[in-house]
Amino acid sequence: MSKGRLETFSDAVIAIAITIMVLELRVPDGADWAALRPVVPVLLTYALSFAFLGTYWNNHHHMLHATDRINGKILWANLHLLFWLSLVPFITRWVGESHFAPLPIAVYGGVGLLAAVAYTMLTMAIVALQGPNSRLAVAVGKEAKGKLSAGLYAVAIPLAFVSQWIALGLYVFVALMWLIPDRRIESNL
Amino acid sequence: MSKGRLETFSDAVIAIAITIMVLELRVPDGADWAALRPVVPVLLTYALSFAFLGTYWNNHHHMLHATDRINGKILWANLHLLFWLSLVPFITRWVGESHFAPLPIAVYGGVGLLAAVAYTMLTMAIVALQGPNSRLAVAVGKEAKGKLSAGLYAVAIPLAFVSQWIALGLYVFVALMWLIPDRRIESNL
Amino acid sequence: MSKGRLETFSDAVIAIAITIMVLELRVPDGADWAALRPVVPVLLTYALSFAFLGTYWNNHHHMLHATDRINGKILWANLHLLFWLSLVPFITRWVGESHFAPLPIAVYGGVGLLAAVAYTMLTMAIVALQGPNSRLAVAVGKEAKGKLSAGLYAVAIPLAFVSQWIALGLYVFVALMWLIPDRRIESNL
Amino acid sequence: MSKGRLETFSDAVIAIAITIMVLELRVPDGADWAALRPVVPVLLTYALSFAFLGTYWNNHHHMLHATDRINGKILWANLHLLFWLSLVPFITRWVGESHFAPLPIAVYGGVGLLAAVAYTMLTMAIVALQGPNSRLAVAVGKEAKGKLSAGLYAVAIPLAFVSQWIALGLYVFVALMWLIPDRRIESNL
Repeated sequence: MSKGRLETFSDAVIAIAITIMVLELRVPDGADWAALRPVVPVLLTYALSFAFLGTYWNNHHHMLHATDRINGKILWANLHLLFWLSLVPFITRWVGESHFAPLPIAVYGGVGLLAAVAYTMLTMAIVALQGPNSRLAVAVGKEAKGKLSAGLYAVAIPLAFVSQWIALGLYVFVALMWLIPDRRIESNL
Repeated sequence: MSKGRLETFSDAVIAIAITIMVLELRVPDGADWAALRPVVPVLLTYALSFAFLGTYWNNHHHMLHATDRINGKILWANLHLLFWLSLVPFITRWVGESHFAPLPIAVYGGVGLLAAVAYTMLTMAIVALQGPNSRLAVAVGKEAKGKLSAGLYAVAIPLAFVSQWIALGLYVFVALMWLIPDRRIESNL
Repeated sequence: MSKGRLETFSDAVIAIAITIMVLELRVPDGADWAALRPVVPVLLTYALSFAFLGTYWNNHHHMLHATDRINGKILWANLHLLFWLSLVPFITRWVGESHFAPLPIAVYGGVGLLAAVAYTMLTMAIVALQGPNSRLAVAVGKEAKGKLSAGLYAVAIPLAFVSQWIALGLYVFVALMWLIPDRRIESNL
Repeated sequence: MSKGRLETFSDAVIAIAITIMVLELRVPDGADWAALRPVVPVLLTYALSFAFLGTYWNNHHHMLHATDRINGKILWANLHLLFWLSLVPFITRWVGESHFAPLPIAVYGGVGLLAAVAYTMLTMAIVALQGPNSRLAVAVGKEAKGKLSAGLYAVAIPLAFVSQWIALGLYVFVALMWLIPDRRIESNL
């Protein structure tokens, strides 16, 4: 089965999720600097989620590039990942509208963690089809960044109730960690 | 006529329908657990519709994969299917906002039934062009799952006025039935 | 210059326009039959606009299929067409919310007329590049349906102020006229 | 690494941004000419932003067409550009809702300037990979229109506080300047 449509569909869902977040941005209630001020933290949350989804698109791009063929199991694992990614605009809006309250920040981490789990399941489904000696299996075998991200999200969830700023700081750290181009798979190809 | 653009357009419509549903999700009116509680059934409806549209994308992917060429009739049959699928975000929102009232649940089943009819018409248009001995005709000839789904939707519509939970249970059952990877066409290819 | 991205971009814009219209659909203010009743005319307007945009996608698909290459002028003519098509969700919403008042119905015809003009300009730009003896030039030379549609829209605009139902009837007639598969270009290929 | 998915994803994001702007358009509060009047400036802002995003898509199309391969740095530079473009619907809505107040007009210029900077960074990343003697490097070497646009945006930002109409006039001028088909790269190919 060809991977073309899987890529097209995933690209469309991620592109829509990344773009409709801007629909959630409340227009300032006025046209002066004072009205712009409460929008700034919301814009920063938007930028964080943009980086989050952009990273997933980027990694998805790399992984599928190293994949030869797909099967039904991979289609469903991919839909599962897209489900969690599609919730990002919702949780981003809640974080923004609640002015960074602890619970939304914790749920944000939960969505991040479940997306990471779904991504790992997708990777495993692809590696299972490609075989343990494939380029991809070798490339992801050394993968530490993915596990570290999932671990940081898991740690951030309870920490959000201690201080939401620590949790938010961890999300920003994970985002920045990924903004460095991924040489792992690239260098293996 | 090539099938490439038909796939791209269908992917885009389904991807948009699946993703804008999240725009319908009302952000909780607060940032505590009590505020999150009324959102849970709405989230579950969203997950059900996500599985519903994901299943259609998945089956559409398989069917078009087994198709060599298309004609004008297939283009229109495909648009007809997309019309019913595009109503899913609307009916999902109504089900959620009405707190699972009987009529919206029944209309949900109606949209599901009409989408199933449209899908069958699309299948027939494709088989008519491909010929009765094509791989696809052989594969769908044994198809029981599609007919069972349509039948369960038809039964669920009146049952929604007896108990909406029975109708909803049937929709969940149909969704789960499809979440098992479709070996029918795959094994014939 | 290849036509692949032009098709992808046009597909995406039309797919988004066709799908976001459903976001405009107001959920009924209740869960009984009485609440569903005012939604019915809005749903019918949605179906009309769905057929309108679906027809443009269909014809665009046929025309580009008969096109070998594109240039900068065609890119801009295509964007011009997409501009008018992107206004369809807006005008559909206005028609629905105004309960079929004459002015919105007239503006609906105006958007339809300008989209038809833009489509003709795109056809001319493509024929200019393809040459007068190309398959496409021969195919569109006999084109009467396009001119008839534009003429009916032009007539419907002033008629909307006499009776909006006559104007609306003309739009439905144009939509049905196109729902017959387009054998013109197909038979020439 | 192939450029196909980069193009698909960029097309999708720009297509969504260009189309969801129409969702921001407030439907007139009535169905007569008086109700239509306040919508006219908002429609013109929409047309301006449509031309703005259409120009970026057009130039992006030309530039990627002249590109052979991509790397991780280009993926991120592209996401950076898409981030600023995704803010266009938000700022367009603010300009419209504030009835052309100075601050939103200035922020509009700021988004335009940052998008121009991001586009230049993307061009540089592509030229760095393609080499100084590539077709693209030669083509963009003479580029004056891009620098002029960025300069006009930079000038318009402070001018918006003197007179928003001067700033708006500069944006319209930049848009018209680009509506002339781009013969630069085309003629070099």
